[in-house]
Amino acid sequence: MANKPKSPDGRFAYEGLDRVIHEKARLGLLTSLITHPKGLLFGDLKQLCDLTDGNLSRHLQVLEQDGLVKIVKSFEKNRPQTRCQITAEGRKRYMRYLNVLEQIVRDAAGTTRAPAANRKLSPA
Amino acid sequence: MANKPKSPDGRFAYEGLDRVIHEKARLGLLTSLITHPKGLLFGDLKQLCDLTDGNLSRHLQVLEQDGLVKIVKSFEKNRPQTRCQITAEGRKRYMRYLNVLEQIVRDAAGTTRAPAANRKLSPA
Repeated sequence: MANKPKSPDGRFAYEGLDRVIHEKARLGLLTSLITHPKGLLFGDLKQLCDLTDGNLSRHLQVLEQDGLVKIVKSFEKNRPQTRCQITAEGRKRYMRYLNVLEQIVRDAAGTTRAPAANRKLSPA
Repeated sequence: MANKPKSPDGRFAYEGLDRVIHEKARLGLLTSLITHPKGLLFGDLKQLCDLTDGNLSRHLQVLEQDGLVKIVKSFEKNRPQTRCQITAEGRKRYMRYLNVLEQIVRDAAGTTRAPAANRKLSPA
């Protein structure tokens, strides 16, 4: 039987792909927040991640409930202002998630760069 | 006002994160299939991705309907055998997806490796 994998069980399970972070919009939100450690205003975040008010609010709520971001409401010249910032816990979990992304890129890179026919699949 | 982003709209929207591929289990399935271009048997795929029969079937169906994998049923010594293989279209779409993952890793890498306080956020 060809292609009997020599890899251990769950080699491609990627358990570290934290579902709270992996969701597409939230991944964009956290990536923008990790690159802006002083935080971003709601309107800027909305623009950077191309989200509607409703979607942004919904995803921020998930991230806040999970302790990954903190949301500070204040007033600036009598106008309400919402600032979002990644927490230390959020940074830690994002880093762990990022390690898994890097693993996927490494796993795939060898094969996608080289012609498929050159790969040795099975020792058997 | 601090942290006014100089990035264009949607800088962190990552539109290229194909939802069919991005789903955690399917991302593992496609990554294992792209590293095994001759295909994998259902049982091996199940083991490599640590999925139940039901989950594996369900996700393979989504990938097959979208033309990303092909599933070939045959008999080997009178026993039914299911072989799954990534298609040319699947390979193309996975490569596009991989480019976006690499972009995210690059976007995040600069900030997560360096102390946050060192980053200059705003030219204004």
